[in-house]
Amino acid sequence: MIGSSLSRLLLIVCVAVLPAAAWAKDPLPSWKEGANKQAIIAFVTAVTTQGDAFVPATDRIATFDMDGTILVEKPQAVLLEFSRAFLAEVARKNPDLATQPYKAMREKDEAYFGTNLVEVITSAGIGMSEEDFRKAIRSFANTATHPRYAVPFGKLFYAPMLELIDYLRANDFRVYVVSGSTQCFVRGVAREATGLPYGQLLGTQIALYYYKGDFTRSGTFRDLTTVSAGKPLIIEYQIGQRPIFAFGNTSGDQDMLEYALGNQTYRSLALWLDHDDAEREYAYDSGVKDVSGLLKVSMKNDFARLFREE
Amino acid sequence: MIGSSLSRLLLIVCVAVLPAAAWAKDPLPSWKEGANKQAIIAFVTAVTTQGDAFVPATDRIATFDMDGTILVEKPQAVLLEFSRAFLAEVARKNPDLATQPYKAMREKDEAYFGTNLVEVITSAGIGMSEEDFRKAIRSFANTATHPRYAVPFGKLFYAPMLELIDYLRANDFRVYVVSGSTQCFVRGVAREATGLPYGQLLGTQIALYYYKGDFTRSGTFRDLTTVSAGKPLIIEYQIGQRPIFAFGNTSGDQDMLEYALGNQTYRSLALWLDHDDAEREYAYDSGVKDVSGLLKVSMKNDFARLFREE
Repeated sequence: MIGSSLSRLLLIVCVAVLPAAAWAKDPLPSWKEGANKQAIIAFVTAVTTQGDAFVPATDRIATFDMDGTILVEKPQAVLLEFSRAFLAEVARKNPDLATQPYKAMREKDEAYFGTNLVEVITSAGIGMSEEDFRKAIRSFANTATHPRYAVPFGKLFYAPMLELIDYLRANDFRVYVVSGSTQCFVRGVAREATGLPYGQLLGTQIALYYYKGDFTRSGTFRDLTTVSAGKPLIIEYQIGQRPIFAFGNTSGDQDMLEYALGNQTYRSLALWLDHDDAEREYAYDSGVKDVSGLLKVSMKNDFARLFREE
Repeated sequence: MIGSSLSRLLLIVCVAVLPAAAWAKDPLPSWKEGANKQAIIAFVTAVTTQGDAFVPATDRIATFDMDGTILVEKPQAVLLEFSRAFLAEVARKNPDLATQPYKAMREKDEAYFGTNLVEVITSAGIGMSEEDFRKAIRSFANTATHPRYAVPFGKLFYAPMLELIDYLRANDFRVYVVSGSTQCFVRGVAREATGLPYGQLLGTQIALYYYKGDFTRSGTFRDLTTVSAGKPLIIEYQIGQRPIFAFGNTSGDQDMLEYALGNQTYRSLALWLDHDDAEREYAYDSGVKDVSGLLKVSMKNDFARLFREE
C-alpha cells in the first residue's frame, strides 16, 4: 500500500511539474516572431490547458501534407525525382527492355514523362517487395542530391515544420503525414526526418500481394489517390478522427484544411505555407483558396531558417 | 535550472517506480494458472526487459481478431445479427421496398440470408453517414441482447481477452483489432469495451464518398476483405509494422498468426482460442492449423471466467 501511494503521489507530481518545465524555452526557434507563431503557440496552449478549449490527448490529431509543406517540392516532387532515377537504373541494367517507360527513360523523352506521371510512379518497384523498395527509397533520400541545394533530398525537410511536428508531439498530439505521394515513398523518405512511425505516414497506396510474409508491389494504385477529397477519405479510413490541426500548401490540401477547420467538437487550426521566397527557395502559386479562419504562413516572413543544416 | 533538475529527478523516479508498482499484482486474474498464462507473462516480461529479447516500445505491435477471439461469435457473427436487425427495421419502416434484401427480411427468408451474406452486410447503412451508422451500431451493442446470455452484445467481450489487451497496453504495446467484420462495425461495437481509438480498430472497409465534412457509405466494399491474406495486407497498409504478438481463433486468422510468428527481427508470440466449452459458451472447430510455435488456448481450461459481468 505504501508503494502504491508513493507511486500515485509521484505520478501526480510528475504530471504537474513536467509539462511546464518541458517548454520553458522557445519551442519554435526556427520561426520568426509574429502573428503565425503566436497563433500556433496560443492554440497548442489552449487545447492542452484545462478550460473551455481543452482537448483530450486522444483527440489531438494533426495532419500535414508532405510535398511543399514539410519537404521541398521544386523543381519537381521528390517522388518523381526518385521514380525517374529508379527507372533510369532499371533501363541501364536491362538494355533489352524496349517497352515504356524504359524506352522513354533511355531516350530522355521529356514529353513522355510530362504526360505519363502515373505510369512513371506505378512502374517504379513493380514486382519488388515493399521492404526492398522502401530501402531503395531511403538510400535515395540519403545519397541523391537536390539540383539547387546540392544536399541529399532527405535533408530538405523544413526545419520550422520539423520543429512544429516535434512541438505538437511533445504536447501529446498524434501527428500524421497525409501526402499525395505514394505511401511507401512517404514511409521511406520521411520516417527519419519526422521520427513518425509508418502507421502515421499516409499516402496513395500501391496495391500489394501477400504471400508467406512478403508483400509484393503491383503496378497499380490500390484505389484512391490521396489528394483533394482523398485526404479526408484516407483520414477517415485509417484514423477515424477529425483533425484539430492541419497544414498544407496546395489546392490538393484544401479539402483536408477545410475538414480540420470545420471541426464541430473542438477548436481547430489550419494553415498553409505560401512559397513566396524565390531568394531562399522557390516562388509559386499553388492555388490554395483563402477561406475564413485559414492562416497563410509566409516562407519569407515566418521562417527564420529553412533547413536544419544551414 | 532547479525546476529542470527537479523534474528530471522526478521523471527518473517515476519511470523506476511506476511499472513495478503497476503490475505487482496478477495482471490476468481472469486467466487460470497454467502454461498459456505463464507463456504470455513470460513473453511480455522478456520483450519489455533490457536484454536479448527486448523490443523497443515503438515496435511492440499486437493484433487481435475480433469475432470469436475477443467477442462471442455464435450462434452468428454479431455483425450479421446487427445487419439483419438494421435491415428488418428499414423494411418495417418502408413497407413499399420490394427489392432485396428487404423482401427477404419481410418474408423471413433464411435461405436468402444463407447465400447472400455480402449483400446483407453491404446493404445495411447504404447512403447513411459513417457517423450516424456508427451511432446505430453502438446503440445496438448497448441494447440488443444475445439469444443465449440475454445481455447486450456489447457486454460479450471475453474478460480474459480485455485483461490481456489492457496488460499489453500497460506495457506500451500498440494493440490493434484486425477483424474480418466491417470496419465501421468494429469501431462501433469494440471501442467502448477495448478502449482502443478508431485508428486501431481495423476491418473490411465500405467505400465512402466525401463531401464537405461528411462521409457517405456506398453499398460496396472498398476493396479487400480483411480475412486470410487480407489481414497481413491491412496491417501493412495501415500499420506498416510486423506484429510481435497476434491472437486469433479461425482459419481466417491463420495468415495473421503466421505473419506474427515469422517475425525475423524480434521474438514473437501467437495464440489461438479453441472454443471447447459447450457448457459455458459453444464448442466448435474453426479450422486453425497447428503450426510450430502457435499456442492453443482452451476456453474451458484457461478462462477462469468468460465475461466481466458474471
